[in-house]
Amino acid sequence: MNPNEGDVRRLRVELGPQSYDILIGPDLLKRAGAEIAARLPGVRCAILTDENVAARHLSTLTDALTEADLSFETKVLPAGEKTKSAEYLLGAVDFVLGTRMERGDVVIALGGGVIGDLSGFVAGIVRRGMKFVQVPTSLLAQVDSSVGGKTGINSTHGKNLIGVFHQPSLVLSDTNVLNTLSEREFRAGYAEVVKYGLIDRPDFFEWLEENWQAVFAGGPERGEAIAVSCQCKADVVARDEHEDGDRALLNLGHTFGHALEGATGYDSRRLVHGEGVAIGMALAHRFSVRLNRCSADDAERVEAHLVATGLPTRLSDVPGDMPPAEALLDYIAQDKKVHRGALTFILTEGIGRSFIARDVPSSEVLAFLRECT
Amino acid sequence: MNPNEGDVRRLRVELGPQSYDILIGPDLLKRAGAEIAARLPGVRCAILTDENVAARHLSTLTDALTEADLSFETKVLPAGEKTKSAEYLLGAVDFVLGTRMERGDVVIALGGGVIGDLSGFVAGIVRRGMKFVQVPTSLLAQVDSSVGGKTGINSTHGKNLIGVFHQPSLVLSDTNVLNTLSEREFRAGYAEVVKYGLIDRPDFFEWLEENWQAVFAGGPERGEAIAVSCQCKADVVARDEHEDGDRALLNLGHTFGHALEGATGYDSRRLVHGEGVAIGMALAHRFSVRLNRCSADDAERVEAHLVATGLPTRLSDVPGDMPPAEALLDYIAQDKKVHRGALTFILTEGIGRSFIARDVPSSEVLAFLRECT
Ligand SMILES: NC(=O)c1ccc[n+]([C@@H]2O[C@H](COP(=O)([O-])OP(=O)(O)OC[C@H]3O[C@@H](n4cnc5c(N)ncnc54)[C@H](O)[C@@H]3O)[C@@H](O)[C@H]2O)c1
Ligand SMILES: NC(=O)c1ccc[n+]([C@@H]2O[C@H](COP(=O)([O-])OP(=O)(O)OC[C@H]3O[C@@H](n4cnc5c(N)ncnc54)[C@H](O)[C@@H]3O)[C@@H](O)[C@H]2O)c1
Ligand SMILES: [Zn+2]
Ligand SMILES: [Zn+2]
Repeated sequence: MNPNEGDVRRLRVELGPQSYDILIGPDLLKRAGAEIAARLPGVRCAILTDENVAARHLSTLTDALTEADLSFETKVLPAGEKTKSAEYLLGAVDFVLGTRMERGDVVIALGGGVIGDLSGFVAGIVRRGMKFVQVPTSLLAQVDSSVGGKTGINSTHGKNLIGVFHQPSLVLSDTNVLNTLSEREFRAGYAEVVKYGLIDRPDFFEWLEENWQAVFAGGPERGEAIAVSCQCKADVVARDEHEDGDRALLNLGHTFGHALEGATGYDSRRLVHGEGVAIGMALAHRFSVRLNRCSADDAERVEAHLVATGLPTRLSDVPGDMPPAEALLDYIAQDKKVHRGALTFILTEGIGRSFIARDVPSSEVLAFLRECT
Repeated sequence: MNPNEGDVRRLRVELGPQSYDILIGPDLLKRAGAEIAARLPGVRCAILTDENVAARHLSTLTDALTEADLSFETKVLPAGEKTKSAEYLLGAVDFVLGTRMERGDVVIALGGGVIGDLSGFVAGIVRRGMKFVQVPTSLLAQVDSSVGGKTGINSTHGKNLIGVFHQPSLVLSDTNVLNTLSEREFRAGYAEVVKYGLIDRPDFFEWLEENWQAVFAGGPERGEAIAVSCQCKADVVARDEHEDGDRALLNLGHTFGHALEGATGYDSRRLVHGEGVAIGMALAHRFSVRLNRCSADDAERVEAHLVATGLPTRLSDVPGDMPPAEALLDYIAQDKKVHRGALTFILTEGIGRSFIARDVPSSEVLAFLRECT
C-alpha cells in the first residue's frame, strides 16, 4: 500500500497543487534538513515547539537543518492546551515577523497537536500564508492532527473555533520520537488509530488486535499502523477537504467523548482526549446495538480490544463523579446543536462499518445514557 | 462590457467555485437584504462597521435586511487605520463567536478599506471560514480593497502583514453612499481609479480626462468608472490570485507612494494613501522618462490630469518638510527589499503601458529623487 524506501514509508496526499508527502519512519528527524531542503531549497526556517519536546528533540532537528545548510530561528512555547490561545498565537506571529522571513520561508511545527494546530495557523496568516512543515511528535499528532490542514486555536466560546485551513508542504513523522512520550499519551493517541479501523477498515482493526503490542513497543508495526491511519484520514479529507460531509465519520466516538471531556472540565488528570474517544467509541458501538444496527458481538470485541491496551471504555472508568445522564445530554446538545430534538451521531453497523446518522432522537440518547450511568 | 439591470452593473469575478458578483449602482444599500437573501437564503448576518459609516448608513442596511427577513447583529468599531490591529480583530472575532453564528452565516463589512480588511480576516478565521459580504462605502474600497480577496491587519512590523486570502460571496457597491464621503477621501480614492487607466487601459484614462467631473458629481459616470476599475483589478487578480506575478502591476505609484507615507509618519493630516499614490504615479512616469522608457508628453499628461482633479503630484505638494533623497531611498529599500543594489519598480512605456522592472539600480532612483527634492 505504501511505497517504502528502506524503513521509511511515503504517503502522497493528493490535493492538486497543494499535494504533499507524509514521510513515516524511524529516526526521520535526523533527515529533516535534507527532506525539507529537497522540497524547499534554501528556505529559512522558523521553528515553533514546546518545552517538553524542545528538551528531548529540538537539537536533533536543528543539527539536521544545519547539516542541510538551512538557517533557522526557534521559539519554545509552554506545553499544554492553554498554548492554543490568542495570546500565544500573537506572540508566535510576532516572533515569525521579527525574523523578517518571507512568504516562501517555512514555519516548522515540532511537537504534538497543540504545537501543530497553533503553528499551522501562524503559517496560514503571516504574510497571508507562509510555507508550513509538520514534525508531529505525539502519536495523536502523527495519526490525526498533522493530516487534513485544519489549524487553529481555542476561544472562550469553545475549542478550535478560530483558525484556517492551511496545508503543509511536508509531514515528517519520526516513529522513534514517540519513545519519549508518556505511556498514557501514547495510549490516548492509539485510540485514534483504532478509530480508523472502526470507521471503514475492518481488516486493519483485526491487524491491530494481533499487533498492538508491537505498535506500542516500537517495531516496524508502529510505522505500519501510523501509515494506515494517515492514509485513512487523508482519504476521508480528500473526499471532503473543507469538512461539509463525509469528514464527519472522523468524529466516531467524539460526540460522547467531547461530552465526557466537558463533564470532567477538561481536567487531564481525569481524562485526556484519546481516553474520552475510547469510551466514546465503546459507547457508540453499544448505542448502535441498542438501536439494532450493530451486533452485540462486535461491540464486545471493540471493548475487549480497548481494554486489552489499557484504555477506558466505561463512564465508571473515569476517576471522580460523573454528572447524571441529563447533564451529559446537555453537553452533547451543546456540541452538536439539536435540530428539532434530533442529533447527528456517528453510528455503526459493525466493526469497520460506521455511518452518519442525522436523526437520532435525543430521547434515545438519554435512555441509553441512563443505562450507562 | 458590463451587463446592466436598470442602473445596476453586475460584474462576475470568475474564481471557479469561489466566483462571485460585484454589483455597482445607486441606492443598492436599500436592496442589500434582497441581494444577500437571493444568494445566501436565511443566513444570519454579523455586521461590522465603523462609527462614521454607522451614523450615516447603518440603518439603511439593517432596514433592508429586516425587509428580507434576515436577522443580524452589529458591532460598531472606531474609524481609522488603528482599527486594523490584533486588538480589534480579536474583539470582532469574539463578537461574531458570541452571536453563535455558524460557518454558513455571513460577516458583512459595511465601511471603507479598514473595515473591509478587518472583517474579511474575521470571516476567514471564525470557524475556519464563514461567508463574507462586502459593502464598501469609500471610493477606495469600492475600486480596490473590496476586490481580490486580500484581508488582514497591521503589525508593529509593518502594514497588512497578518491576514488571509478570503473571497467574498458578494460585493455591493452603492455609488450614492459615496456622497457622504469627504471630498478629500473621494479624491484620494480617485487616484486608484486613474491607476487602472495607467496600468493597461489608455482608453479609460482618456475617458477619465473627459468625464472625471461627472464621476466626482455622482452621475452614471461614477458607476461606470467604478465598474471599469473593478474589472481591471479582477482581471489582474484572476491571472494571479495569490500574488506572485502580474498582480505587482497594481503597485503602480505605490513604491514611491509608500515611501512618502513612511516619510510623513502616516500622518493623514499631511498625506493620505491615495495622495501618496497620485504623487507616486506622477513620479513613476517622470522616472520612466528619465530612463528613456516613456515620452515626456505622456508624463505631463498624467500630471495634468491629476492636478486638474486637485490631487498632489510633487513632493513639494506635501505640507511640511520632506526628508532628503537618501532617506526616501531608505524607505523604498525597506518596502521592497533590495536585491544586490537593484529594486523592483513598476515603470511605464507611456499611458496604459506599465510594466514590471525587476532590476532598477538604486543609484538611478537616488539620482532621480535628488532632482525631485
Ligand atoms: N488539526 C486537527 O485536525 C486536530 C485533530 C485532532 C486533534 N487536534 C488537536 O491536537 C491537540 C492534542 O494533541 P496532542 O495530544 O499531541 O497534545 P499536545 O501537543 O499537548 O501533546 C501532549 C503532551 O505530550 C508532550 N509531547 C509531545 N510529543 C512528545 C514527545 N515526543 N516526547 C515527550 N513529550 C511529548 C507535549 O509537550 C504535551 O505535554 C488538541 O489541541 C486537539 O484539538 C487537532
Ligand atoms: N485588501 C486590499 O486589497 C486593499 C487594497 C487597498 C487598500 N487596502 C486598505 O484599505 C484601507 C484604506 O481604505 P479607506 O481609504 O477606505 O480607509 P477607511 O476605511 O479608514 O475610510 C476612510 C475614512 O472614510 C470614512 N468613511 C468611509 N465611508 C464613508 C462614507 N460613505 N461616508 C462618510 N465617511 C466614510 C471612514 O470612517 C474613514 O474615516 C487601508 O487600510 C489599506 O491598507 C486594502
Ligand atoms: Zn480525536
Ligand atoms: Zn493603493
